[in-house]
Amino acid sequence: MPDISEKGLLMPASPIRKLTPYADQAKKTGKKVYHLNIGQPDIATPEGMLNAIKNIDFNVWAYTPSEGTLTYRTKLADYYNKLGYNITPEDILVTVGGSEAITIAMQTCVNEGDEIIIPEPFYANYNGFACMSNVVVKPILSHIENGFALPPIADFEKLITAKTKAIIICNPNNPTGYLYSKEELEALKALCLKYDLFLLSDEAYREFCYDGREFISPAHLNGLEQHVVILDTVSKRYSACGARLGCLITKNKAVIQAGLKFAQARLSPGMVEQIAGTAAVDTPDSYFEAVNKEYTLRRDTLVKRLNAMDGVFCPNPGGAFYVVAKLPIDDADQFCQWILESFNHQGETVMMAPATGFYSTAGSGKNEVRMAYVLNTEDLNRAMDCLDIALKQYPGRKMA
Amino acid sequence: MPDISEKGLLMPASPIRKLTPYADQAKKTGKKVYHLNIGQPDIATPEGMLNAIKNIDFNVWAYTPSEGTLTYRTKLADYYNKLGYNITPEDILVTVGGSEAITIAMQTCVNEGDEIIIPEPFYANYNGFACMSNVVVKPILSHIENGFALPPIADFEKLITAKTKAIIICNPNNPTGYLYSKEELEALKALCLKYDLFLLSDEAYREFCYDGREFISPAHLNGLEQHVVILDTVSKRYSACGARLGCLITKNKAVIQAGLKFAQARLSPGMVEQIAGTAAVDTPDSYFEAVNKEYTLRRDTLVKRLNAMDGVFCPNPGGAFYVVAKLPIDDADQFCQWILESFNHQGETVMMAPATGFYSTAGSGKNEVRMAYVLNTEDLNRAMDCLDIALKQYPGRKMA
Repeated sequence: MPDISEKGLLMPASPIRKLTPYADQAKKTGKKVYHLNIGQPDIATPEGMLNAIKNIDFNVWAYTPSEGTLTYRTKLADYYNKLGYNITPEDILVTVGGSEAITIAMQTCVNEGDEIIIPEPFYANYNGFACMSNVVVKPILSHIENGFALPPIADFEKLITAKTKAIIICNPNNPTGYLYSKEELEALKALCLKYDLFLLSDEAYREFCYDGREFISPAHLNGLEQHVVILDTVSKRYSACGARLGCLITKNKAVIQAGLKFAQARLSPGMVEQIAGTAAVDTPDSYFEAVNKEYTLRRDTLVKRLNAMDGVFCPNPGGAFYVVAKLPIDDADQFCQWILESFNHQGETVMMAPATGFYSTAGSGKNEVRMAYVLNTEDLNRAMDCLDIALKQYPGRKMA
Repeated sequence: MPDISEKGLLMPASPIRKLTPYADQAKKTGKKVYHLNIGQPDIATPEGMLNAIKNIDFNVWAYTPSEGTLTYRTKLADYYNKLGYNITPEDILVTVGGSEAITIAMQTCVNEGDEIIIPEPFYANYNGFACMSNVVVKPILSHIENGFALPPIADFEKLITAKTKAIIICNPNNPTGYLYSKEELEALKALCLKYDLFLLSDEAYREFCYDGREFISPAHLNGLEQHVVILDTVSKRYSACGARLGCLITKNKAVIQAGLKFAQARLSPGMVEQIAGTAAVDTPDSYFEAVNKEYTLRRDTLVKRLNAMDGVFCPNPGGAFYVVAKLPIDDADQFCQWILESFNHQGETVMMAPATGFYSTAGSGKNEVRMAYVLNTEDLNRAMDCLDIALKQYPGRKMA
């Protein structure tokens, strides 16, 4: 039998999904499992988007242009220009999910063996995409104590070498929920200009900013146009994770031209998705107002419950729908497995993502977990009941 | 401004799409362009598949499992088992188009820097996927004179080194339309067993075999189960290129497990597509009978018209919906550009793909073009009228 490749062995498994067999087993034994492990919202997809699918009127389900249809890119440009991005349809490559936007950006902007700096904890799949692209991730530690704010620029500068080609930020952040301030982005701008680095801005959670705070993108900063690559997706904005529809946006023509060659190799993004995505841009503001109100309520519920538990600390995040909380435990991987395998409260338990999978620095996040508040407040409260009791029963309980 | 990556420069542009600006310009000047350059069929997608899209009844467009839904994989297994593949749903990874199946197979089966042998001319995007995966393509020349039959096994053996990890075949072949015989596949089996190579079988055109000839897959060959990886797509089978729905099938568990990690990084294939793909398996035989009758008529029309032209030779292919023809010209790239730019017959012209893009060996295919017979016979005849006259007017006319 031929051996599989080294890369097939090296590719990291998903930390969000790796406990799935334990959850499946728990369900088989009759337990109800509250899924806080994955960012799959329970929010309804906008009706306009679903109706666009139901009303398709083509006879041949055909390829679209590799860069996406002009209709969709034009509509998307309108959406971004309302946000003040000042772009044209030619600045957009439509991608198969935000995932492909990240892959194409890494492969287009960073040489193999070169380095990309990412504040950690970070979206775990960046590791997978970096592995696929032979790009070296240089993590820079952010801290739960200040809510995972941007690390000091001096810390970035210590990491910069001749091999540094780019910085990735995810804003609002997955997994921490941190929303970067204008000052933090201005500091990153100065850094990227000083060292001529790409700034890859993953904005999957742009729509989810709370407490009246404004979302600022690197696309808003003058003078950084040739350095900024925006990575986006409809997955979270419209609760359409299964659409696999994203985009890459940049004013840098060399990146667009090279990215198009990667897009041509895989021929086309989905056609039905682009029809639905075009309709999605017309989603009324009232949809987002209702969704943000609901997420704010959930965040408040979750953060309050967590901080009320003995030995637990959870910062109050400004955006996205995740929190990272510090728990009084020895090992988050073991705890998250134990709570599925060996614990139940009234026949129920909870699935969380150990934060270790979101750190690249070994040993970091060992007493932290990520939770997605993608359930209604009643379910969230029941999940927190489970966690509260579980923390008291867990054999590996350990106060910080 | 930061430089883009070396890979961004190295990635090949699509030979199928690179003449598109000339076609666009021709259309702007009022010419009608017959597109024989791309495998986008004009055949209607099965009604059952389109109805499945129109009848979606979910409220949340959610992620599916990374490997695809069990419902779809179960249905797919039924489809393949009717063909005699003897597989289970666990042997299938659902992919984003056949493209992703090829990428995952290359990255999972072949080490970076290692080699994969591919009979040429071959599907041009293999070059792009190999570039993305740092896999070295070793082409092995097949010849128009014998209809692009499998090159002698002795020729394969001359290419095999310690770095050889796999062979790719596309059957029926894109771009040649050649349908491999049982004897040819048995010979490849013996070779793969002797040298312990993976046999990657791209079967996108499985449904399109003509003149009553039987399709044989490496999946039909006993004793090769751990070596065979099937790469498939719904694009051509159901004229659903825009669905971006494919799959990778293998009995080799190590390949499935490693492939799943690549699939997890990009989270999920499309949800609506899997619903449509599930319905597609129930497409009645009458659909395929009608489609194959139509393609046979088109092939016969095209091949007859081509061979009637002075200095043109076109083998009669056993499958798919492509032909590669030898023309009395100096340079296919120049000719295909010239016919768009500088020629018209009654306001019409034709777009073809220069065969050079399908060869990896420099200088090969310089007087060959690929044509996809994806237009009705009336349009095909008009396209052939254009070609016939153009060949007489082309300044670079050159008899072989």
